Amino acid sequence: MKVAVIGYGYWGPNLVRNFSWLDGVEVKYVCDLDSDRLGKVRNLFPNVSVTTTDYSEILNDESIDAVAVATPVNTHFQLSKLALEAGKHVLIEKPMTDNVADARKLVALASKVNRILMVDHTFLYTGAVIKMKELAESGQIGEIYYFDSVRVNLGLFQNDVNVIWDLAPHDLSIMSYIIDKKPIGVSAVGVSHVKDSLENIAYITVFYEDTTFAHFHINWLSPIKVRQILIGGSQKMIVYNDMENTEKIKVYDSGVEATPGNKDELYNTLIQYRTGDMYAPKLDQTEALKTECSHFLDCIRNGKQPISNGEFGLEVVKMLEAAQKSMEQQGIKIQLER
Amino acid sequence: MKVAVIGYGYWGPNLVRNFSWLDGVEVKYVCDLDSDRLGKVRNLFPNVSVTTTDYSEILNDESIDAVAVATPVNTHFQLSKLALEAGKHVLIEKPMTDNVADARKLVALASKVNRILMVDHTFLYTGAVIKMKELAESGQIGEIYYFDSVRVNLGLFQNDVNVIWDLAPHDLSIMSYIIDKKPIGVSAVGVSHVKDSLENIAYITVFYEDTTFAHFHINWLSPIKVRQILIGGSQKMIVYNDMENTEKIKVYDSGVEATPGNKDELYNTLIQYRTGDMYAPKLDQTEALKTECSHFLDCIRNGKQPISNGEFGLEVVKMLEAAQKSMEQQGIKIQLER
Amino acid sequence: MKVAVIGYGYWGPNLVRNFSWLDGVEVKYVCDLDSDRLGKVRNLFPNVSVTTTDYSEILNDESIDAVAVATPVNTHFQLSKLALEAGKHVLIEKPMTDNVADARKLVALASKVNRILMVDHTFLYTGAVIKMKELAESGQIGEIYYFDSVRVNLGLFQNDVNVIWDLAPHDLSIMSYIIDKKPIGVSAVGVSHVKDSLENIAYITVFYEDTTFAHFHINWLSPIKVRQILIGGSQKMIVYNDMENTEKIKVYDSGVEATPGNKDELYNTLIQYRTGDMYAPKLDQTEALKTECSHFLDCIRNGKQPISNGEFGLEVVKMLEAAQKSMEQQGIKIQLER
Amino acid sequence: MKVAVIGYGYWGPNLVRNFSWLDGVEVKYVCDLDSDRLGKVRNLFPNVSVTTTDYSEILNDESIDAVAVATPVNTHFQLSKLALEAGKHVLIEKPMTDNVADARKLVALASKVNRILMVDHTFLYTGAVIKMKELAESGQIGEIYYFDSVRVNLGLFQNDVNVIWDLAPHDLSIMSYIIDKKPIGVSAVGVSHVKDSLENIAYITVFYEDTTFAHFHINWLSPIKVRQILIGGSQKMIVYNDMENTEKIKVYDSGVEATPGNKDELYNTLIQYRTGDMYAPKLDQTEALKTECSHFLDCIRNGKQPISNGEFGLEVVKMLEAAQKSMEQQGIKIQLER
Repeated sequence: MKVAVIGYGYWGPNLVRNFSWLDGVEVKYVCDLDSDRLGKVRNLFPNVSVTTTDYSEILNDESIDAVAVATPVNTHFQLSKLALEAGKHVLIEKPMTDNVADARKLVALASKVNRILMVDHTFLYTGAVIKMKELAESGQIGEIYYFDSVRVNLGLFQNDVNVIWDLAPHDLSIMSYIIDKKPIGVSAVGVSHVKDSLENIAYITVFYEDTTFAHFHINWLSPIKVRQILIGGSQKMIVYNDMENTEKIKVYDSGVEATPGNKDELYNTLIQYRTGDMYAPKLDQTEALKTECSHFLDCIRNGKQPISNGEFGLEVVKMLEAAQKSMEQQGIKIQLER
Repeated sequence: MKVAVIGYGYWGPNLVRNFSWLDGVEVKYVCDLDSDRLGKVRNLFPNVSVTTTDYSEILNDESIDAVAVATPVNTHFQLSKLALEAGKHVLIEKPMTDNVADARKLVALASKVNRILMVDHTFLYTGAVIKMKELAESGQIGEIYYFDSVRVNLGLFQNDVNVIWDLAPHDLSIMSYIIDKKPIGVSAVGVSHVKDSLENIAYITVFYEDTTFAHFHINWLSPIKVRQILIGGSQKMIVYNDMENTEKIKVYDSGVEATPGNKDELYNTLIQYRTGDMYAPKLDQTEALKTECSHFLDCIRNGKQPISNGEFGLEVVKMLEAAQKSMEQQGIKIQLER
Repeated sequence: MKVAVIGYGYWGPNLVRNFSWLDGVEVKYVCDLDSDRLGKVRNLFPNVSVTTTDYSEILNDESIDAVAVATPVNTHFQLSKLALEAGKHVLIEKPMTDNVADARKLVALASKVNRILMVDHTFLYTGAVIKMKELAESGQIGEIYYFDSVRVNLGLFQNDVNVIWDLAPHDLSIMSYIIDKKPIGVSAVGVSHVKDSLENIAYITVFYEDTTFAHFHINWLSPIKVRQILIGGSQKMIVYNDMENTEKIKVYDSGVEATPGNKDELYNTLIQYRTGDMYAPKLDQTEALKTECSHFLDCIRNGKQPISNGEFGLEVVKMLEAAQKSMEQQGIKIQLER
Repeated sequence: MKVAVIGYGYWGPNLVRNFSWLDGVEVKYVCDLDSDRLGKVRNLFPNVSVTTTDYSEILNDESIDAVAVATPVNTHFQLSKLALEAGKHVLIEKPMTDNVADARKLVALASKVNRILMVDHTFLYTGAVIKMKELAESGQIGEIYYFDSVRVNLGLFQNDVNVIWDLAPHDLSIMSYIIDKKPIGVSAVGVSHVKDSLENIAYITVFYEDTTFAHFHINWLSPIKVRQILIGGSQKMIVYNDMENTEKIKVYDSGVEATPGNKDELYNTLIQYRTGDMYAPKLDQTEALKTECSHFLDCIRNGKQPISNGEFGLEVVKMLEAAQKSMEQQGIKIQLER
């Protein structure tokens, strides 16, 4: 199988490296508009046959099975559309597109041309998230009450997208994967503190039809780096601290039980707390992107739908777009279309 | 000086103990409707002259200078009103009242009868908050961009108030003290996960006229205990981690500077990060309630206004009431009256 | 049952409080040479019948079943001896005595007069140590390879004993309890950094007949407080971090297996690492001293031997005395008599 | 300037990479007995001219100015000797040699042939150690009372050297650099818990003429990874936690002062504790090996002595050899020859 990597900025080298490691795959092309970067490709990956600034060269090469698009988000739609139309399978860097309409078009197109469309939500393929999904699916954590995510640090101001479009795709994708229900609404507030700059801090709330809800703090201007998710379930609770070297996932056998009682009784009598053992399961240490590239190839070879397929990526874009709209309207709740 | 403590539940014993320690003060009365509790008072504090279930006894005792009201919040207004009318100085447990109208009436009454009205926002008197106030006032942290607070743990379900009225007074009072500006609006979302119970998780956002804003996560149903405030300033940033035994306050000499530049330049070129030393100042270890009781007496003796006076307490109640309204309307922004 | 507490310094109040809480026990006497302290007893514990500076009053009171000796260590022997001779059961604050010969005499005397002799090694009765003992006894951790303890902080310089006699009794008692074998030798090094003062930092090594060994770092002059024990076993390993609020005990399913192999093979091929889940068991939260006082009374009532009986306390004193000797001889290994 | 790297195992690639980055240097040769590894060199570093299994080729190439020896320790002496005799400057991987006699010979030889001899004690060139050296030299921490080091983890069993020779060179070199005095003696205890294997856990004590002393815990069989050094000084104390991402160095303005007093006074009255602010200085983030390679070249060019020159490396080997001897004699103190 032959693949091409489009865009050799921050993420591209990781894609080339991981695809190169896999059996039965050749990274034939790397394409970037910046020829200096292409020089780096030739130094670091002598196994890549062609480096080019001309995307059509790849589209016209029938030997190419798949392209990985790792360019700025506002080019995702056009580049992916051309690739699908040329009959290539496509892996798009997250977020899938910068608007819902384009994302819908890509999903429809991929279906029409019968090609795999996958979005590179890398976190889904980490040992930590795989373990949380397992715990959620097995029923061990019970009904999920809330999902609280904090992703903050200093030093990643982007000029092309705000903090929501930059950081929230990670956590929204993890939430979508873990919580097996469709959200119905989104609200968000955010502010820019740097003149002429986009929002650098934001808070997003995601609502479901029932009392499940999710909340996200994303911030480019924090003195400390925090990457933590709390999942409160009716049976167990999870803390996912991505800054821990080991013990990223801790599962608490703790909870609350409401005993139906006489409302006139003294306060605090109806709620029973349960605290028990905590355990930190061993996690798969495979590099997430390797697992993901391998999954992409497996889906192509065997006609399977990827975990983070076009529909999945579309759901994330829906929430991002709704969050953006809400933020522009001071936090009013935006309904998600179904 | 003679004081009476009304309500001997969770907090009352701390008030009796701290007032008893101070020079020139006698805790003459402890009043509670539960006579078993009054028995405990007599065992533990033989120095308290009278224990009574009859509040009027205290109101009628002209030797009593001040009363401390530590009863359930829905009784604060009535008990404080009677005390002020009887010419006593009043210290009310937080939150001051369960609605803005009552809080306003108490402020007006205290002014009319010329008595000290103080609200027991104990955190303001901790070494940590005193230090943060100092740092903010000295201009060292610059303009405050955001205030982010998390106060979550397992095991404090209340039946009479929801998580907002229970936990947020702490953090809203700290915010009010540190940020020397009046907020203009509040929004909140929250959910109850336990049947027939009040909201156990909520998020509050507080807006100012400029881009400063504040956010609060409060949660009775968390697997871990977190009590952390991040303050992002234009010059320095603060992390206040109340779960740390030492080093509760860390001051980071970090920040971001926007260099006015050509918008067409490549991304990331206009923003300069600054990271420098961190330091953790030594904090005063005095018990906060002791400092606070002492401050209350000092204000009475010298006719000074307390830091957490009636007006201060009223501001907190305004935010709580607005948060409650917003939560009931799915998070719409509620303007604060000025 | 009636008990007397001798010595009302740092620890005495805890003994009075805990004995007072237990059913069927009366703390009849508190004895201290300092009459100011006795005044405090009367204020805080009105239930104590007699406060006295005269120890013989207690010895002569036939209604007294037991005495708890919480005086400076150099008085333990004499006071305990008198109590045993007067037919009282005795609980001695740790360390049991300041030399092995005296400890032996007390053990022999207790046996002769058929009274319970118990040493107040409080840590043995904490939920954390009880859990570690359980894990060790059940065979889950396998053979214990090493026991590494660090107990350091700033601010506890004593003038009457050095850091070994002050801090090491805690960790030596935990080691003795967990490792079910008799040590054969001890070495120690230590230094005083404050003029005319006793040693403020020391390291102790305890040897066993096989390759099990234990090591202790004790230090009054550390910038940070550390109280951590690592236990390396052939099956599992334990980290006991007493500074953690929750999760004091973590059990790691990790280890090393040596595969007998050809010595000529390349290095690193014979050792297999095993890393698995970690779990933090729920611990009993009862105050250790309460559990201990209750155990003391139970042993008296039912003629059982306490976990930390005289023989146990003697073993600790043997190691302390050997450590002291070794330290005075620059760390040579001192054999423990059996 | 032209250099050759000898040995392309774990560390060699880092040397090649760092020397390649520096201006005015060419890595002309990489030498290893394993031709597979040489293949990797050619893939990863196409800029390296020659890969060879024949060391004499390098010795005979007069264009080569310096060699970096990164082979197993038992070959260090022979390879370095040949290089010095051939007129090359030499950088040897730590520890310098596996015995003191050989180390002495290399020092003498380098002096005789007037070539730079440097030992690759990489930690000395980290931002953290550079900062500690600065603090020590400036007098800010006062007299150094003790140096306590813990370096433990799971998963690095070596078959050719024991844990002392493997891990202790790091910490002994840091100690030697920070404490500007010559140690006079060493003791050590250690044990092997894996059959037919070398010692996997050891404790080393280093003595000075005065009361300064240092202690090291090194362990291949720990459930958790700890890399922490405490330095207690008369003025300030340092905690160096290498596992921290930021804040690796914390400086505590804490200490103890002994007030000469009447020995008969009550205990605890003569010692005054001082606790103040803590600060975590910003550290240089440059890769240590880059700083070190650059320093090596600077010394060659300008005829300066490296910080970690032959004499420095010899001191470390003296302590290692003494620790080994002490361990074989159950911990007796071994004098260091001066």
